[in-house]
Amino acid sequence: MITKDVKKQLIQIVGPENFDDSNAGRLVYSYDATPQFQSMPDAVIAPRNTDEVSRILAICSEHQVPIVPRGSGTNLCGGTCPTEGGLVLLFKHMNRILEIDEENLTATVQPGVITLDMIRAVESKGLFYPPDPSSMKISTMGGNINENSGGLRGLKYGVTRDYVIGLEVVLANGDIIRTGGKLAKDVAGYDLTRLFVGSEGTLGIVTEAIVKLVPKPETKKTLLALYENIDAAAQTVSDIIAAKIIPATLEFLDQPTLLVIEDYARIGLPTNAKAVLLIEQDGPLEIVARDMEKIEAICKKGDAVSVQTAQTEEEAFALTEARRSALSALARLKPTTILEDATVPRSEIANMVKAINDIAAKYDISICTFGHAGDGNLHPTCTTDIRNEDEMERVEQAFAEIFEKAIELGGTITGEHGVGAMKAPYLEMKLEKEGIAAMKALKAAFDPRNILNPGKIFAKDARKRVVTER
Amino acid sequence: MITKDVKKQLIQIVGPENFDDSNAGRLVYSYDATPQFQSMPDAVIAPRNTDEVSRILAICSEHQVPIVPRGSGTNLCGGTCPTEGGLVLLFKHMNRILEIDEENLTATVQPGVITLDMIRAVESKGLFYPPDPSSMKISTMGGNINENSGGLRGLKYGVTRDYVIGLEVVLANGDIIRTGGKLAKDVAGYDLTRLFVGSEGTLGIVTEAIVKLVPKPETKKTLLALYENIDAAAQTVSDIIAAKIIPATLEFLDQPTLLVIEDYARIGLPTNAKAVLLIEQDGPLEIVARDMEKIEAICKKGDAVSVQTAQTEEEAFALTEARRSALSALARLKPTTILEDATVPRSEIANMVKAINDIAAKYDISICTFGHAGDGNLHPTCTTDIRNEDEMERVEQAFAEIFEKAIELGGTITGEHGVGAMKAPYLEMKLEKEGIAAMKALKAAFDPRNILNPGKIFAKDARKRVVTER
Repeated sequence: MITKDVKKQLIQIVGPENFDDSNAGRLVYSYDATPQFQSMPDAVIAPRNTDEVSRILAICSEHQVPIVPRGSGTNLCGGTCPTEGGLVLLFKHMNRILEIDEENLTATVQPGVITLDMIRAVESKGLFYPPDPSSMKISTMGGNINENSGGLRGLKYGVTRDYVIGLEVVLANGDIIRTGGKLAKDVAGYDLTRLFVGSEGTLGIVTEAIVKLVPKPETKKTLLALYENIDAAAQTVSDIIAAKIIPATLEFLDQPTLLVIEDYARIGLPTNAKAVLLIEQDGPLEIVARDMEKIEAICKKGDAVSVQTAQTEEEAFALTEARRSALSALARLKPTTILEDATVPRSEIANMVKAINDIAAKYDISICTFGHAGDGNLHPTCTTDIRNEDEMERVEQAFAEIFEKAIELGGTITGEHGVGAMKAPYLEMKLEKEGIAAMKALKAAFDPRNILNPGKIFAKDARKRVVTER
Repeated sequence: MITKDVKKQLIQIVGPENFDDSNAGRLVYSYDATPQFQSMPDAVIAPRNTDEVSRILAICSEHQVPIVPRGSGTNLCGGTCPTEGGLVLLFKHMNRILEIDEENLTATVQPGVITLDMIRAVESKGLFYPPDPSSMKISTMGGNINENSGGLRGLKYGVTRDYVIGLEVVLANGDIIRTGGKLAKDVAGYDLTRLFVGSEGTLGIVTEAIVKLVPKPETKKTLLALYENIDAAAQTVSDIIAAKIIPATLEFLDQPTLLVIEDYARIGLPTNAKAVLLIEQDGPLEIVARDMEKIEAICKKGDAVSVQTAQTEEEAFALTEARRSALSALARLKPTTILEDATVPRSEIANMVKAINDIAAKYDISICTFGHAGDGNLHPTCTTDIRNEDEMERVEQAFAEIFEKAIELGGTITGEHGVGAMKAPYLEMKLEKEGIAAMKALKAAFDPRNILNPGKIFAKDARKRVVTER
């Protein structure tokens, strides 16, 4: 609850135009891209600079007002749903690229910068920021940092955490700290930089970030390999790595996903294939040519029924764009789309896909599976209807079993989407109670009054997927 | 102090042959590779497995006995000196490579494995573990992980933290937790894996680690560029990066260092040059050839008086080995060698080297400077004599000024050596009091009774370099 007095203090900081507690204003920020989660904030606030964020947090801390930092709300774990009310904090005024430093290969950004805008800005200087979450057209850098976003290029290049080398963060008590810097090496104390990355706004509010850039790869080539069965596709993934080739992208799509994407994108995807690998290599011209030749041979030897290399940049772009549109395409099928990201060691992909299909059959639900095969990060996606209570019950049981299987295979409950409110009930499967206890102690150390995105990461009670509005 | 009863309990766990509280046994572990630090532990203990580590920690926690995990003690920050007594914990029984997984490109190791042994083992399978601290012939993986060791290949490949993807850690209370896994992507909760890396044994005891491997580069080429002045060398570093080339190694050595190394290694280093760059590129044959050609042209255009490409593998090996021997070579000069690692953004290297030379002149002390120019990680090294109190006073003042300058240039007080006991008094320069407070809260959350390597990272009081035995 925000009292009249607190409201007055907050308005004094940001001005009346940047504070909104109207019903309409609050409603817009009561949910994010995650189905099943909605909860009204008490107000929405848009600070103009770090100092204002600091003053807001000091007030929130004093009055124990929850505060939820939010980029574009594209996350899929209920991470920015204000499940305990309080303030939603927007970065619409803190959305600039502050610097692209070509000598030190860094970019300094505010949290509200759209990911793709930054990617384009650095590419125009011959540089490259590899993390490319499918939502990058609308997601923000702040959101990517808080969720440690992955993407299609993760196999070769890593994820957001691998590129964040410095942060400005406002702590729960209003303290402003700076971590790291334009430095390739820094061991001055604990690595708070990487700790804040992926902490989902529960340890501090990121107000500025320095990211590492690399030279832009000279060229890129894309191919599609079609398979009659999933095992053969999974074996190809292993065979490519065993040949000591690390492609930039190594995506897997099963037939149900292919059908849906083709129906949406209409680019002539081979919907008769049981499984498809979308493979991309980038780098120097001659190496890309050589790698792609080897990859093609491996695919063919591995029982691919067809291997198609994109002949033009447009064709390649269409293929990857189609893959990126998987969520949108699937979302058209039924009212509710639950996109998960159980992740396993690369060697277990075939086993995991098979287990997912068995589990879907067992619970009589529809699951499409696609994902980043190269790094074992799969996206089993269920199209369903939240109003069908009986089916939802089965969906929940199925996903619990999927997570159990992932853990059994040495995997994790979430590879790149985060825990948020949605996965919190499952976290103990991965971490066991000792791991949860350590993380809770860490959370309490940074946020003793539990105002920073409360209700996220840690479950209040037993496994339960559907959260009702408070 | 270890009471009779505690001693009895510890011996029950590890057996009498793995517990040593004799004077001779303790003396051996009263110091590490850092000058000026010595302090006797109460006993030395060598557990045989994780369960024993857990039981030891439960006892230490109960009786508030300090415990200092130690690999080979090659660190340069007093990180493994038992400054507050207690137990030194050795990993001589936990020194095996448990698995090299060629499908998932991982190695699973115990902390006592010698770094170079692991590097050789994975290279024999065509794989590559890039972090290569100069001490790798004797350092352990556990030590590398605790100190987040860097090395010569950091510019292109990153440091130890970039390769650790899973850990088994025993917490202060004896809890055993597992973080990460054989997973390229994992966002299940806070990133404890990277937090433990570089935490210098102050948050938990690492008992097992999964490291990421990459395919072994096909080939490697090495060249030496000689300069008449430091500025030209520093400019070349910037020019290479500006040409979008990231060499595997880009080392800088000033003339005083060259003279000392040549005197030690006798491989015909050009001791008449004022500065030398040692540059190495690895990768596919044609790319290495192309990059090295470009680099050679950049060096020549940048006023290098001579550029010499190593003609054979042996010649290349001799050059990098000579560079790696810098500390040993310098240590022969005078009784005390203080090797520092102030680090700045790459673009500030020339400014930093100049500042170091000015400061050395101002305090009338002898400083040689070499280091990883590509990542701004310099090693100003002072050869002195701890018994010369007057000079030591000046050395301390000089280094304080060097750290101040590094911070002023956007750098840090330590790039790869860690804080330990030695840098603790300077940490606040980099982190300010708010950053220190956040890290102390984190430490208290993990180690409320302050038994894990106490006295490290955080300073008790004001700046003071020399620590006397307790």
